[in-house]
Amino acid sequence: MDAKIITIGDEILIGQIIDTNSAWIAARLNDAGVHVTGCATVGDEPQAIAAAVEEALANANVVITTGGLGPTKDDRTKQVLAAMFGCGMVEDAATHARNERMLAARGIAYNELNRAQAMIPECCEPLPNPHGTAPGMWFERGGKVLVALPGVPFEMKYLLDEEVVPRLRNHFSISEITHKTMTTFGIAESMLAETIAAWETALPSYLHLAYLPGPSGIRLRLSTYGEVGTGAQEEVGRQFAKLEKIIPDYVVGYDGETVSSAVAKMLTARGQTLAVAESCTGGALSARFTALSGASEYFLGGVVAYDNAVKTHVLGVDSATIEQHGAVSREVAEQMAAGVLRLTGSDYAISTTGIAGPAGGTPEKPVGTVWIAVAHNDGVHSRLLTLGKLRDQNIERASAAAANLSRLILIGHPDTPMRVGTL
Amino acid sequence: MDAKIITIGDEILIGQIIDTNSAWIAARLNDAGVHVTGCATVGDEPQAIAAAVEEALANANVVITTGGLGPTKDDRTKQVLAAMFGCGMVEDAATHARNERMLAARGIAYNELNRAQAMIPECCEPLPNPHGTAPGMWFERGGKVLVALPGVPFEMKYLLDEEVVPRLRNHFSISEITHKTMTTFGIAESMLAETIAAWETALPSYLHLAYLPGPSGIRLRLSTYGEVGTGAQEEVGRQFAKLEKIIPDYVVGYDGETVSSAVAKMLTARGQTLAVAESCTGGALSARFTALSGASEYFLGGVVAYDNAVKTHVLGVDSATIEQHGAVSREVAEQMAAGVLRLTGSDYAISTTGIAGPAGGTPEKPVGTVWIAVAHNDGVHSRLLTLGKLRDQNIERASAAAANLSRLILIGHPDTPMRVGTL
Repeated sequence: MDAKIITIGDEILIGQIIDTNSAWIAARLNDAGVHVTGCATVGDEPQAIAAAVEEALANANVVITTGGLGPTKDDRTKQVLAAMFGCGMVEDAATHARNERMLAARGIAYNELNRAQAMIPECCEPLPNPHGTAPGMWFERGGKVLVALPGVPFEMKYLLDEEVVPRLRNHFSISEITHKTMTTFGIAESMLAETIAAWETALPSYLHLAYLPGPSGIRLRLSTYGEVGTGAQEEVGRQFAKLEKIIPDYVVGYDGETVSSAVAKMLTARGQTLAVAESCTGGALSARFTALSGASEYFLGGVVAYDNAVKTHVLGVDSATIEQHGAVSREVAEQMAAGVLRLTGSDYAISTTGIAGPAGGTPEKPVGTVWIAVAHNDGVHSRLLTLGKLRDQNIERASAAAANLSRLILIGHPDTPMRVGTL
Repeated sequence: MDAKIITIGDEILIGQIIDTNSAWIAARLNDAGVHVTGCATVGDEPQAIAAAVEEALANANVVITTGGLGPTKDDRTKQVLAAMFGCGMVEDAATHARNERMLAARGIAYNELNRAQAMIPECCEPLPNPHGTAPGMWFERGGKVLVALPGVPFEMKYLLDEEVVPRLRNHFSISEITHKTMTTFGIAESMLAETIAAWETALPSYLHLAYLPGPSGIRLRLSTYGEVGTGAQEEVGRQFAKLEKIIPDYVVGYDGETVSSAVAKMLTARGQTLAVAESCTGGALSARFTALSGASEYFLGGVVAYDNAVKTHVLGVDSATIEQHGAVSREVAEQMAAGVLRLTGSDYAISTTGIAGPAGGTPEKPVGTVWIAVAHNDGVHSRLLTLGKLRDQNIERASAAAANLSRLILIGHPDTPMRVGTL
């Protein structure tokens, strides 16, 4: 069964908002066995919305739209859909009552704009939204389904999981899609492709391999589509097991595992703890760990030692070392890691110090020069990274590499080469 | 002049990657006066790529594609385009030489996969890519332009800015588009709409207003399209100046200004400094400040005090206070802020402590309960936030609200009400 996703909003076409909804919806539909064949974005123009919806309905069984259901004048999706499906607007009593209650609970006046949120096309079935004032709307025509969802991500997510996917399962008989994805970190794409070429060539023809390079490593996805027999999932597992033997230290995990979640799992399982001392990553490395629920099981905290005085006063880095080697040096990275290990009493401590850019580079230490270190009770390991010119990318890559160094130490291979970047 | 953007890759249709390229390209094209009328995403299937490109070329003057130019077998965009434009593949000597040099400099072997990156359709003009092995490709047909760019964001960005936009300016005569966007923070969308209704109704008809709600506040955009006379830009400025008088404390700034960049500007201008003590935001608040270049001008650093022992030992929070009021309390938030102010000697210090979820809630302090505080030499201010159930959203909103509290103090209005969320 095929689906198309349409995102509605001028804000996307002028690039003020990144569309994260489509990826999330696509992932959930794929999990449910629905094959997403395309996504499209259109502006708030009624004609553009109508044309995109008609085109999508002509080419897919299910169309999901997000956006354009807000209380303000620029949101016109539901009027367009009422016209397309040939019905008028009515006030939905349940939505009206729910919205009045919800706003009262939050101390917000129930004004005309809020009240208009309860007006919906008569020919749709409203999907109750407990997190916002715009209900989802389920339309059917000629065996096909169109669902309009609000654009606010957590409202959309709730409605998709609780209302849309269960209804789609009832409405269609859904065929099988299997995806499994391996996360690798520390090997260049061309090197990886060469290293695994023989394995790739020997894959059964019904297994489809894709490379997904990204800032947090290259992921390898094996997929099957349609009816390929009951053994497909087991075969995917067997193939990945073979691949693990070819590139053992580069395999981080499966299906969304990241370097930081892999480290989190190992530390939690061992009952050990982690602390972080960050200079150039400025909080981003800690945030990677604390973004995952359960972080308090192993993550004690850390110090963002942006200013040199914080490095010396809080972490105990020797100011003579900074004077002699510079704040961006192996010596300072190692003292930062050892310092936060001492300060927090953690079992492992990760540090970063570097020049994220765009300013601050010198001929000897250009922008992108980063030292990372990991200290533990038996010693300290450090690496020099030579990254690029872009600040956000340098912060992201340095964070991922620093977390990966702790992963390599945890798996007992602290000296495995690590390449960070996309080449 | 109209443009369409096409993103190519199965990884997007199964939701494994969020397409950030389209928003970035759309923003740059809009700045250049090119009106983006739609975006589409297709998989790596040759037929789907060809159909999407043909459809886009039929409806727009310019089509930009990203993705599908990698060295691996699943990337087939350039073969599809060669077939569509009716030419064969040739090795581009300049790309070949550049890639060989680039890989040698990074110590990567130049293998067959890398060499294949220099093969390009004979009918395109290659756009040299100094950051990766896939060149951009510029095609022309019937006065229209198609540009194929690699999907790796920083390679794509470089090529768009350095090659594509300058060439488009030469190739087309580009009409005027004006956008200006005000960032607001701390007011609910329905309340905002009601408060500014009279101002909105009185806008000149050629000014188009849009509400852009997001986790970091609601932005208001005024746009003009086409030829509207030379005074349009001034009128946009005048209208926003009027609006500032209606909602003064909620206006953060313009055109991408965020709460943290506004705080950064004020502190830098005053020569004052900031430090941060984070519990539930776990580094995300620091990362917001350090993501901006120039952070070292005012940002000293901070402590991620995830574990209570870090709160007491490093920040000097009284353990009896934690015992009596709990780690998530006004008292602990205020002591954390005061503690990091003392520790770093900063002029201002922000703190957060809360229950991000999904676990850790109690009937008295459910998930989403967060205390934030800001300390400075003249005292400390704190607020209770009542957020939602979602961990990532709670971290994001608590970080934005905490930064906004420091903004309100910096503008001298520490007691202005603040609502965080989308209702």
